[in-house]
Amino acid sequence: MPDTTGKTITCKAAVAWEAGKDLTIEDVEVGPPRAHEVRIEIYYTGVCHTDAYTLSGKDPEGAFPIVLGHEGAGIVESIGEGVESVKTNLCGKIRTTQGKGVMPDGTSRFKCKGKDLLHFMGTSTFSQFTVVADISVVPITDKAPMDRTCLLGCGITTGYGAAVITAGHGGLEKGSNVAIFGAGCVGLSVIQGAVKNGAGKIIVVDVNEAKKSWAEKFGATDFVNPAKDLKEGENITQRLVEMTDGGCDYTFDCTGNVHVMRSALEACHKGWGESIIIGVAAAGQEISTRPFQLVTGRRWKGCAFGGVKGRTQLPDLVQDYMDGKLKVDEFITHRQPLSGINQAFQDMKAGDCIRCVVDMRKL
Amino acid sequence: MPDTTGKTITCKAAVAWEAGKDLTIEDVEVGPPRAHEVRIEIYYTGVCHTDAYTLSGKDPEGAFPIVLGHEGAGIVESIGEGVESVKTNLCGKIRTTQGKGVMPDGTSRFKCKGKDLLHFMGTSTFSQFTVVADISVVPITDKAPMDRTCLLGCGITTGYGAAVITAGHGGLEKGSNVAIFGAGCVGLSVIQGAVKNGAGKIIVVDVNEAKKSWAEKFGATDFVNPAKDLKEGENITQRLVEMTDGGCDYTFDCTGNVHVMRSALEACHKGWGESIIIGVAAAGQEISTRPFQLVTGRRWKGCAFGGVKGRTQLPDLVQDYMDGKLKVDEFITHRQPLSGINQAFQDMKAGDCIRCVVDMRKL
Repeated sequence: MPDTTGKTITCKAAVAWEAGKDLTIEDVEVGPPRAHEVRIEIYYTGVCHTDAYTLSGKDPEGAFPIVLGHEGAGIVESIGEGVESVKTNLCGKIRTTQGKGVMPDGTSRFKCKGKDLLHFMGTSTFSQFTVVADISVVPITDKAPMDRTCLLGCGITTGYGAAVITAGHGGLEKGSNVAIFGAGCVGLSVIQGAVKNGAGKIIVVDVNEAKKSWAEKFGATDFVNPAKDLKEGENITQRLVEMTDGGCDYTFDCTGNVHVMRSALEACHKGWGESIIIGVAAAGQEISTRPFQLVTGRRWKGCAFGGVKGRTQLPDLVQDYMDGKLKVDEFITHRQPLSGINQAFQDMKAGDCIRCVVDMRKL
Repeated sequence: MPDTTGKTITCKAAVAWEAGKDLTIEDVEVGPPRAHEVRIEIYYTGVCHTDAYTLSGKDPEGAFPIVLGHEGAGIVESIGEGVESVKTNLCGKIRTTQGKGVMPDGTSRFKCKGKDLLHFMGTSTFSQFTVVADISVVPITDKAPMDRTCLLGCGITTGYGAAVITAGHGGLEKGSNVAIFGAGCVGLSVIQGAVKNGAGKIIVVDVNEAKKSWAEKFGATDFVNPAKDLKEGENITQRLVEMTDGGCDYTFDCTGNVHVMRSALEACHKGWGESIIIGVAAAGQEISTRPFQLVTGRRWKGCAFGGVKGRTQLPDLVQDYMDGKLKVDEFITHRQPLSGINQAFQDMKAGDCIRCVVDMRKL
């Protein structure tokens, strides 16, 4: 392979030219990494609801044309200069430019048909080559199969971390009663974290009855479908309070629906119950409740990426997977070549797909 | 003094006959305590905004006629049978009947002009004698001066406990930057707790400029009056974020205003900042925010009575006061005889009164 260091690489990428339209596979030019940047050859990427959310046009920060994708694994092709570390998993250093779809120096590394393309979430994994800030990369063991570990880049880590890191004081306690709203990739990962920490009841709430067997497969003890399992005049909050003799110790919203977020909070036990928001709400939507819910001891929290510090804690999750302690393979229901990426979006919306992995090197 | 055990006692009480009207001093009959009840001669009582809130008619649980008052100290006159303990400071056992203004057996011990009077918060300290459930009484050392320690029955304990018990994992950490909204009895008590735990910046926010010297007296490092100290186009959240280089570690709402509660949350530092609701909001009002505020790591909590377990932890606070480690005397700006209780309400609303103590045995 010729040395591409310092040169622009032309490769295939799935480009989102405008909101609400299918992605199109294009030849894009990927510029060389500048100082504190890394150019990566992406081998595999997952497709996540957040990609679909931005593509839909509902994301107020979403701008086009853009290269989406943020759940990727690949191999470093070349690097710029220097390395830095981050204090929390929400690095202020990169947030402003990342939100604008550019690299920290304010420019893009992607070009297509003479136009600059925007970066997405500082990652843009829907391209065969991408450039990211050094602080956005996590080096992992080369023994880990990239066609699975790519999923640790978002969904699995987000749900699992919410249960074992964000909940309580560093993870939910043994015997805790837990309710999880939404049994997609994130919700199933919360189950996995709850099982790991020895939760008592693990109640999954989903209006899709097909998710019942998925929930049970991952270790849920109960499943409630609010569309068919509630009694006359009963709401989901009341049902959960009844099932847990006063309320849940922990609840998790994995839906992004602000009304569900309220139910999740109010299903918590007074005095100590804690609700954790994981789902991303649509632009402009707000959560609300009576302050009495908090004054009587409930706690409302949330997390991004499960509260996991990518650069220091993600390698441990990869190791847990390698040691058979963390399920990853079980989430993969669909696979597509790069050219099938629009089908991956459709499958995700259909509800029987937990995760589709896209092979970026197959057209 | 004749033995009154088992007999009805006739004494003076300030009765609230209807919403929005002055209290009137009446002769009331106080029935003997039944099983698990205690009859107490009230010596001193504070007057709190929550009494005024219920008297105003805005409290949806407020019903009349009623004997208000919940910040009292006195001496046990006689007892019924048995003792029980409570697990949290929000005892479910008594909540339902207490909310309805009756004793746990569903009846009232107060009669006036042939009518039953309702109990308030399970205490009704605006009567020279009152009957309460045994689990609502905290025995304290008889060396403590009741004309001061009565204030530990609500306001001081509520604010102090919020800082040293509810915040963080059992109290705010040394060096934390803190903002406190509202510098009444509760807010000043939060300052006291923040000082005790070694807070860094202690910023007090109040629209009453006269509270600046009060805040400083209790140990605040900064005071912001949003009505006059903000720059053009600046809001209080932005100011606090700027003053604390990114946001507060802890904020406390001591106002009961739901808009202030939102500002308090949003002034917290992303990643770890925690906002604690102490103030009681008007009926039907709701708090709201964008879920993004929580997803990026802020936490929304609240507490009642500061999270203090009255029966096990309040005696320690009394001891701290006796040892000169907890300010109480400094809160008392006004005193009234029982006959001056309506003046105490007026003084409280005027804003220059932190606490008025009513001498129940002086007419």
